[in-house]
Amino acid sequence: MPNPVAMDRNDVRIYEFKRIDLKGATIIDGFPSVGLVSSIAANYLIKILNMEHIGIMDSTHFPTVSLIRDAKPLSPVRIYAGRKERNGDQIVAFISEFQAPPALIRPIAYTLVDWAEAQRCKMIVSPEGLVVDPELRDSAEISDTVFGIASTAHSRELLKQNGIQSFEEGVISGVAGVLLNEGRKRDFDVITLLAEAHPDFPDARAAALVLEAIDDLLLGIEFETKPLFEEAQRIEERIREIQKQAIVKKDEKGAPRPSMYG
Amino acid sequence: MPNPVAMDRNDVRIYEFKRIDLKGATIIDGFPSVGLVSSIAANYLIKILNMEHIGIMDSTHFPTVSLIRDAKPLSPVRIYAGRKERNGDQIVAFISEFQAPPALIRPIAYTLVDWAEAQRCKMIVSPEGLVVDPELRDSAEISDTVFGIASTAHSRELLKQNGIQSFEEGVISGVAGVLLNEGRKRDFDVITLLAEAHPDFPDARAAALVLEAIDDLLLGIEFETKPLFEEAQRIEERIREIQKQAIVKKDEKGAPRPSMYG
Amino acid sequence: MPNPVAMDRNDVRIYEFKRIDLKGATIIDGFPSVGLVSSIAANYLIKILNMEHIGIMDSTHFPTVSLIRDAKPLSPVRIYAGRKERNGDQIVAFISEFQAPPALIRPIAYTLVDWAEAQRCKMIVSPEGLVVDPELRDSAEISDTVFGIASTAHSRELLKQNGIQSFEEGVISGVAGVLLNEGRKRDFDVITLLAEAHPDFPDARAAALVLEAIDDLLLGIEFETKPLFEEAQRIEERIREIQKQAIVKKDEKGAPRPSMYG
Amino acid sequence: MPNPVAMDRNDVRIYEFKRIDLKGATIIDGFPSVGLVSSIAANYLIKILNMEHIGIMDSTHFPTVSLIRDAKPLSPVRIYAGRKERNGDQIVAFISEFQAPPALIRPIAYTLVDWAEAQRCKMIVSPEGLVVDPELRDSAEISDTVFGIASTAHSRELLKQNGIQSFEEGVISGVAGVLLNEGRKRDFDVITLLAEAHPDFPDARAAALVLEAIDDLLLGIEFETKPLFEEAQRIEERIREIQKQAIVKKDEKGAPRPSMYG
Amino acid sequence: MPNPVAMDRNDVRIYEFKRIDLKGATIIDGFPSVGLVSSIAANYLIKILNMEHIGIMDSTHFPTVSLIRDAKPLSPVRIYAGRKERNGDQIVAFISEFQAPPALIRPIAYTLVDWAEAQRCKMIVSPEGLVVDPELRDSAEISDTVFGIASTAHSRELLKQNGIQSFEEGVISGVAGVLLNEGRKRDFDVITLLAEAHPDFPDARAAALVLEAIDDLLLGIEFETKPLFEEAQRIEERIREIQKQAIVKKDEKGAPRPSMYG
Repeated sequence: MPNPVAMDRNDVRIYEFKRIDLKGATIIDGFPSVGLVSSIAANYLIKILNMEHIGIMDSTHFPTVSLIRDAKPLSPVRIYAGRKERNGDQIVAFISEFQAPPALIRPIAYTLVDWAEAQRCKMIVSPEGLVVDPELRDSAEISDTVFGIASTAHSRELLKQNGIQSFEEGVISGVAGVLLNEGRKRDFDVITLLAEAHPDFPDARAAALVLEAIDDLLLGIEFETKPLFEEAQRIEERIREIQKQAIVKKDEKGAPRPSMYG
Repeated sequence: MPNPVAMDRNDVRIYEFKRIDLKGATIIDGFPSVGLVSSIAANYLIKILNMEHIGIMDSTHFPTVSLIRDAKPLSPVRIYAGRKERNGDQIVAFISEFQAPPALIRPIAYTLVDWAEAQRCKMIVSPEGLVVDPELRDSAEISDTVFGIASTAHSRELLKQNGIQSFEEGVISGVAGVLLNEGRKRDFDVITLLAEAHPDFPDARAAALVLEAIDDLLLGIEFETKPLFEEAQRIEERIREIQKQAIVKKDEKGAPRPSMYG
Repeated sequence: MPNPVAMDRNDVRIYEFKRIDLKGATIIDGFPSVGLVSSIAANYLIKILNMEHIGIMDSTHFPTVSLIRDAKPLSPVRIYAGRKERNGDQIVAFISEFQAPPALIRPIAYTLVDWAEAQRCKMIVSPEGLVVDPELRDSAEISDTVFGIASTAHSRELLKQNGIQSFEEGVISGVAGVLLNEGRKRDFDVITLLAEAHPDFPDARAAALVLEAIDDLLLGIEFETKPLFEEAQRIEERIREIQKQAIVKKDEKGAPRPSMYG
Repeated sequence: MPNPVAMDRNDVRIYEFKRIDLKGATIIDGFPSVGLVSSIAANYLIKILNMEHIGIMDSTHFPTVSLIRDAKPLSPVRIYAGRKERNGDQIVAFISEFQAPPALIRPIAYTLVDWAEAQRCKMIVSPEGLVVDPELRDSAEISDTVFGIASTAHSRELLKQNGIQSFEEGVISGVAGVLLNEGRKRDFDVITLLAEAHPDFPDARAAALVLEAIDDLLLGIEFETKPLFEEAQRIEERIREIQKQAIVKKDEKGAPRPSMYG
Repeated sequence: MPNPVAMDRNDVRIYEFKRIDLKGATIIDGFPSVGLVSSIAANYLIKILNMEHIGIMDSTHFPTVSLIRDAKPLSPVRIYAGRKERNGDQIVAFISEFQAPPALIRPIAYTLVDWAEAQRCKMIVSPEGLVVDPELRDSAEISDTVFGIASTAHSRELLKQNGIQSFEEGVISGVAGVLLNEGRKRDFDVITLLAEAHPDFPDARAAALVLEAIDDLLLGIEFETKPLFEEAQRIEERIREIQKQAIVKKDEKGAPRPSMYG
């Protein structure tokens, strides 16, 4: 952190295209994590639950890019909401393909929690990939386990009730780490779910494991768990394609550039 | 985006030399794109429609340069307006030769949409060059097609009515990308028109294709489409010349410089 | 200091999870010092005195990380408080594992003193490691001595009464240095205690020496001095482990990253 | 322009040592240009017209330096005024030896025009060196010609009346370029006068040519044109000397520096 | 000056430990100069006149360091005041061991003059080392001469009355240069006294020469001039020692640092 830049939560704002009641909803943090576990999980939920694009998170510091999907322009950070299900359970997903630069991570996390509180949502869940020591990797013991960390006594109890193994010692960095700290500071339920993931490519298997834990946690939400692994694989392939996609319309660097503005 | 700089839309302002009624007008975004498609298209429209220089967009962060044309000084970003034609159609063009640095792209786009709304303009159109995979380049299938993306249901319908092929999946970056996102956010009609362009030099052919699509979209505006290709070629040559032009009057770097201010 | 960044004490704030009376308490500055003397000392006190986590110091410029201990998330800078003991003596500890970047050192120190004054605490003590010239290192003369510097006449008298040798000439940098200057400026008691420490690894022995001096200074506080050296060793090992720990959940640099955001 | 810095015209201010009536005066922009044409021209006018030092332009971003001339300290940017002559003609000169960094060019130009308007001056003239293609250099055709560009219809007419050849196409950068754009924006008379100059050293000959054009433009001002070329040469030599001058009293870089402030 | 940083005089403040009447006092600028002439001179005056530490100049951008002298902590920039002597003469000294970065030089100088005016001090004197061309170095002509520059007619007269040779042409940079410009701008008496100094090490001889000139200028102040050269030598040695001193308590760079905060 050699060059701090003055930036606060006001640099990041949420714009709602449509106002809907989100009281009691659970927010899925789909900002990119190791193995893109969060992105795959959030994408799957959006599709399987047929969630609706209800708004965006925006900032003058976000990439100047529009993603075109199904002939419609998408902002770099989108918010989707599902229907309210049994006993009030409902899912909201924040999803993005871009890796936030360090100076934006706190403003993003603060704005997310501010909004969650304002909407009276009940919980934030961050799907995360766990990078295990190469020597221990793929050991039967770890590779099928989902670990959980919770910001409050209440959410720690919730993990316990659902048999999710506690993550005892370690470090969570990025948006998920700040969400946990904010959760503890504000006494708001924030849970990080970790599954072993490969750090170098999108890991659909880890996402599927975390999704099963989410399914357990949210009693009112039920989604097909059978097609999960196959579908996750398809999402994985799609994300890889986007990343390779060379069709960039306006490339600031490559475009011909008048010499007078060296 | 390693070093975000605090900058907002107030850093970019529009100054009108002359106030005219622009209600219902269509704005052409002439900020440089791949193959300078936008610059060539905007320049052609300004000439063929005999548009009038009505103002500038300015910022303390824009280049400190005056372009001299026909013995008159021009700011780096200019606004031109055409006459109001049949059924209220009218064209306004923003034109610039300078590639905006990343931190200015959003302020430029926001200011443009703010102004468009304040003037009650009806639409913004961004001509863009499409960089195709070298292997597919110049294939008959792609090279004659103009693709369109629209920010709203209304403008998507407009593309359809005019037989402009929908751009389904991809990425639009720069001013045009932010304009699309803002259009969706504010429910304002923004259209990007794409034609295959060569990324390494000004591409008059692509500009001509996009201009034909603009001609189709704006029923009230009619411009000669015959001299289009030849004229476009001339504009292309002129822009190349400007870029090569070595006659720079005051070169901050090369000028003799007192040694005491190392 | 080639590139000053505008930053003031408002960039650093204290959040109290629990309000308790700290009038007359002594604050231990546990920000990392040479040999991690301050960290080891503060950790030991928190454990041996069974201190309670009462709040955090936070800033948008602090690392975006959550430390997980005993399955609970911890912010990068924490505040712990002990019970009020005989004649009102009480200990508050600020503890952190992160090295503050230069631009944050003054805001951290100012905020700490502001808070100390607001709470009507009586003193701030900084445990520090003293890096001695390699040739003199481990000389019997220096290696067992704890040196003290105090910001006021009153605290200099306190050092004298407890037989703590005065540090006559030298330089104290970082948070401890600014605390001393602020103490002198505001006439608030600030003491730095120095013990010879190895600059290259956590030095439990130096921490133990400084802790004995703290025990002397605070008559109302009594802690077992016998297990001090062994316990300090254990803390040292634990801190080393944390530093080596490779299990980082979300690594901004290593994670797969869409190519469109170069 | 990779790293825009927030800076506005308030960062640059004018301080008047003496208030005098400057209504109708013509301002000579003596900020360094190619071949130091502007500096030589402004210096010559100050001497030959015996102009008085009436104020300074200052900014916290200007060099921290005092120029000593005739045993008096001078700020980096000075303002001089001549007497009011026949039909109200009067000359004001801004003069500086320092090359403004890009982020200061607009604030300098804006402040200059703001002040010109507030004083009700009638015109700003920028002497400039024209860097010609090496192949065309010293051709009889170009080397004796002074070209002019004007910001308004009125000032273009003035150039024409005085037989100054119009500069039709090109680029003017730096303070002079921004002055032209501002002149057009505000409808204030700004003229740039260009003479072929060598980019690598102070060019007295070019300055003399521009001075003759200024003499033509300002009917009320008359200065000896005979000693012009010789005097210009002397000024050129003096400026070169200042630049070489090694007697710098306080050199931030070379001075012995306590090692503790690395 | 490639990267201007927004900074103004409010970034630098003066804190008085003790309020005393300084009307008519002369301020010695002891910020480091070539050969540390200013530091040696100010240190000598503080000792010989037994001056009292009355306050500090402080800024969030000053080094985060406390200098320990005689077991007391000192801020990086200190203010000392002497007694009021015959005909009201009194000396105030600003002293620092740190080289101000360029962006702080103007705020330091402005704050100093603001304070001088507020206290109704009569004059500021900057002792400076003069770096002479190596070929001319140590020539009898220059090496024994003290040169003076003054900001006002009144102070130029004062130099003349005391037989101090006028410095006619040259450049004064750093704090002293800005003080001269500010003096001229505000019509406040500022004098720079220059003696030939070696640029590479502290030069006690030059400091002694400047001190003799200060003794001449301030009739009411009398200090022993005999021990001056010997004492100056001792101060020189002491400053050298401080610079070499390796006993740095908390070295941000060298200290063990958790790997998670790369």
